[in-house]
Amino acid sequence: MMNTPLLLTQMIERAERYFPKKEVISRTESGIHRMTYAQTAERTRRLVSVLRKLGVNKGDKVGTLAWNHHRHLETYFAVPCSGAVLHTINFRLSPQHVSYIINHAEDKLLFVDADILPLLEGIKEQLNHVKGFVIMTDQNELPETTLSPVYHYEKLLSEGNPKEPFIQDLDENSPAGMCYTSATTGNPKAVIYSHRGILLHAMALGLVDNTGISERDTALPVVPMFHVNAWGIPFACVWFGAKLVLPGPAFSPKLIAELFEAEKVTISAGVPTVWMGLLKELEEHTYDTSSLRMILCGGSAAPKSMIKEFETKYHIPFLHAYGMTETSPLVFSGVLKSYQEELSEEERYDIKSKQGMVVPCIEIKVVGLDGEIQADGKEMGELLIRGPWIADEYYQDERTEAAFVNGWLHTGDVVTIDEEGYVKIVDRTKDLIKSGGEWISSVDLENALMAHAGVFEAAVIAVPNEKWQERPVACVVLKDAYKDNVTKEELLEFLAPQFAKWWLPDDILFLSEIPKTGVGKFLKMALREQVKDLYANSK
Amino acid sequence: MMNTPLLLTQMIERAERYFPKKEVISRTESGIHRMTYAQTAERTRRLVSVLRKLGVNKGDKVGTLAWNHHRHLETYFAVPCSGAVLHTINFRLSPQHVSYIINHAEDKLLFVDADILPLLEGIKEQLNHVKGFVIMTDQNELPETTLSPVYHYEKLLSEGNPKEPFIQDLDENSPAGMCYTSATTGNPKAVIYSHRGILLHAMALGLVDNTGISERDTALPVVPMFHVNAWGIPFACVWFGAKLVLPGPAFSPKLIAELFEAEKVTISAGVPTVWMGLLKELEEHTYDTSSLRMILCGGSAAPKSMIKEFETKYHIPFLHAYGMTETSPLVFSGVLKSYQEELSEEERYDIKSKQGMVVPCIEIKVVGLDGEIQADGKEMGELLIRGPWIADEYYQDERTEAAFVNGWLHTGDVVTIDEEGYVKIVDRTKDLIKSGGEWISSVDLENALMAHAGVFEAAVIAVPNEKWQERPVACVVLKDAYKDNVTKEELLEFLAPQFAKWWLPDDILFLSEIPKTGVGKFLKMALREQVKDLYANSK
Repeated sequence: MMNTPLLLTQMIERAERYFPKKEVISRTESGIHRMTYAQTAERTRRLVSVLRKLGVNKGDKVGTLAWNHHRHLETYFAVPCSGAVLHTINFRLSPQHVSYIINHAEDKLLFVDADILPLLEGIKEQLNHVKGFVIMTDQNELPETTLSPVYHYEKLLSEGNPKEPFIQDLDENSPAGMCYTSATTGNPKAVIYSHRGILLHAMALGLVDNTGISERDTALPVVPMFHVNAWGIPFACVWFGAKLVLPGPAFSPKLIAELFEAEKVTISAGVPTVWMGLLKELEEHTYDTSSLRMILCGGSAAPKSMIKEFETKYHIPFLHAYGMTETSPLVFSGVLKSYQEELSEEERYDIKSKQGMVVPCIEIKVVGLDGEIQADGKEMGELLIRGPWIADEYYQDERTEAAFVNGWLHTGDVVTIDEEGYVKIVDRTKDLIKSGGEWISSVDLENALMAHAGVFEAAVIAVPNEKWQERPVACVVLKDAYKDNVTKEELLEFLAPQFAKWWLPDDILFLSEIPKTGVGKFLKMALREQVKDLYANSK
Repeated sequence: MMNTPLLLTQMIERAERYFPKKEVISRTESGIHRMTYAQTAERTRRLVSVLRKLGVNKGDKVGTLAWNHHRHLETYFAVPCSGAVLHTINFRLSPQHVSYIINHAEDKLLFVDADILPLLEGIKEQLNHVKGFVIMTDQNELPETTLSPVYHYEKLLSEGNPKEPFIQDLDENSPAGMCYTSATTGNPKAVIYSHRGILLHAMALGLVDNTGISERDTALPVVPMFHVNAWGIPFACVWFGAKLVLPGPAFSPKLIAELFEAEKVTISAGVPTVWMGLLKELEEHTYDTSSLRMILCGGSAAPKSMIKEFETKYHIPFLHAYGMTETSPLVFSGVLKSYQEELSEEERYDIKSKQGMVVPCIEIKVVGLDGEIQADGKEMGELLIRGPWIADEYYQDERTEAAFVNGWLHTGDVVTIDEEGYVKIVDRTKDLIKSGGEWISSVDLENALMAHAGVFEAAVIAVPNEKWQERPVACVVLKDAYKDNVTKEELLEFLAPQFAKWWLPDDILFLSEIPKTGVGKFLKMALREQVKDLYANSK
């Protein structure tokens, strides 16, 4: 067979040649932009010529600090298709971490949304390699800034070459992108994505048993484009000619629901907290969501009650998936097998609330204390992953050695796997509650709590305990309508029939919110800090 | 990213671990066999151990002469997963060509169906490298044969190791399969398929805009397993966990229709002549074909009238595709773009009767006399193809040089490409009729003739002509009900409004059948021979 490489240039060239009429809808600071892939492709070519003029060479890192919009999409293709490496930066991290990240990656150029400028202004003295800042704005004039030198994105593009050729003769294993992920302790660590990995992953997103993205779709990635390439969705959409809807800055559940209705969105993707917010919005107002064929949910476990509500109350099919920054991210897809459709509703939702079955091209191993565990849905072990879109190291980071062992990524996630191959995340190795020599799954307790009508969110953490080593404590946010109407005793009674007695939380704290990471995951570390003092003397 | 190779071992291991309950239905000499993928995987492992015992080493060629059935499927995985190369042999070729093929490939071992033994017995003296023959039969005893040494497939398997490991540490570019294709003149020429190529191609079969094969499917490949790996369908089915229905020896349209109904087949694949036969069967008898979501048609052009009849009369979606032995085969998929669904019925069927749009990962170029042609649906040029599942040579064959030039496969197919990217095969460079310095497309004339109610099949060929160089002559087979009721004049009148006058055939011959290749394509070479004498003196 020909050794033609798998490169991102193929994706944008395909959209340019075969889907020039298909649209990219983008919400920016000033409203809704409508563009065609013909325009996206031309602007991408212009941007490639701009990068070359600004001295960006093959292998150089180019950072973005931006929301989900069409200009960010153009960097997604222009940077790798010029031979450089797209470094999407999570601007919700602490300024210290952002500055660490930019320096560690040695970003040469930064693309930044106007509203994110203050973050960069605050750390500009610490940036060692950045040669310039390209500001992405709808305005004709650049905003006032202390950064220098600064460029105006649209002005650069207007001077670019609309027929600039993409890079040729690139090895498919060349780096195309990079993304940092928060570590439990210490600085964030980086993963490099190759052209081959991104392309194969996009192909997996097109498979029917995964997300089945096709030309017929209108996709709205709520998941930020700085977070694992928005789960690869922009790549799949451009390649397959799907319409893309990018929700822009500081969106709300209301805005998402309005875009679903206005643009007839067929598939959307985000973390559970996004969907909890949407459910609340759908409860309070009426929207036509009948175009939606799939809500894709990952990042952390979606409670069964939420999945069921989307499907039975709003008739929106809900797909639970699993992945990590290290895995591009798709590893598990929660689609049922055809013969499982005949199971009872409860049995089906039990499967659908698991993280799913491993997708083609990827292999897993689940390792307990005595080697590979039984596929019985009960035994717990750590999840190990390998495959062509799984990272093989942390970029220039000594934490590589602990996570990548003998060709397998050690995820730190504790899982069970059932007879049918469906994997359930029980906990993080670090978040498991070790009580009296046994493991308690905080995730199971959280899901059970969130099935209570009055509970909006729940996080269960371990607190140190002299006798049992650790004991679970639940932190609960009540829905507005239930504030002050639900007691600790009521929730404990609600849990009691579902768990062994020793699994029940020692305490339930009512909070006004659960601290979250920039991508909407519960920040259990912060929560533990917050709660620790209260139980400093627990016996 | 990890450099884990793309290997066929992943496919069968995935079926073994995640789809053990899914079925392979197989029709053999003695009836219908039902097996599960658990059994298929175990039998495949046993077969790997058998191959090793019989001295088959990494890189050795192993031939099969077999119909579509479960044992043939087992060789599809056991041979490449032992590190050897599966050589599927078209047993409908002439004995001379079959013996050439076996010798040229240096097949070490041959797997053969009992009813194909006489072919091998007739050429056994000429086979230079074959060390043994494994007979695939349902019977407990081997049939009488002059071949030696012979082995009984089931007996070998019963002595095999059910847990035999597959090959490890194989490069993804290693050969996995090979297939010979007939040449216009001379001996057949061979293409080698790599693990990487087959796997990427199978992934493409899973994409929604192509065939979208998934776990939910029940696939019946009518296309022979000796013909371009049955278009890769067995690989996709095993990998994605689809149910497979293999129709076995000497099937008829009636049998195919019965299997559709009995097994609730969702997708089937074959050449136009198969579907013409099925249409006839559906006209004469009643079957429940409501489970079918797709008929995939390739190998040669399907007439628009046939596509329309399947869709409008029988409500069976019909997908026109294009490929060659050299291309694994999928290159074009005839699925409409979403906005094309709004076109008129006639416009839609005009697009659907083209060969389709190039699939992801593959690139094309259409080259006329003055370089790349306009995408206007009119200009004609030769189709050039490249991509990771396109062959880069004919195996040990000096015809490589003419077909593979500067990294592109020169197909010899003359095509147009329209504004939307849909390609239409106008002819073979060799089958085009060159009349008075202009080109006439035999395919266009054939399709027009086949749209006539009384015409069952039509082939248009060039006959030499002193004045015009070549002129078209049509060979027509009438439907039984119309025999002797349709005249030459009537057909010419039928064609007249559709073509320029000089395109109309000089003559129309009524035949009882059109000679066909082993895979059901019109054998125009033979037809030209047959007709030549008649027109030896045409002026």
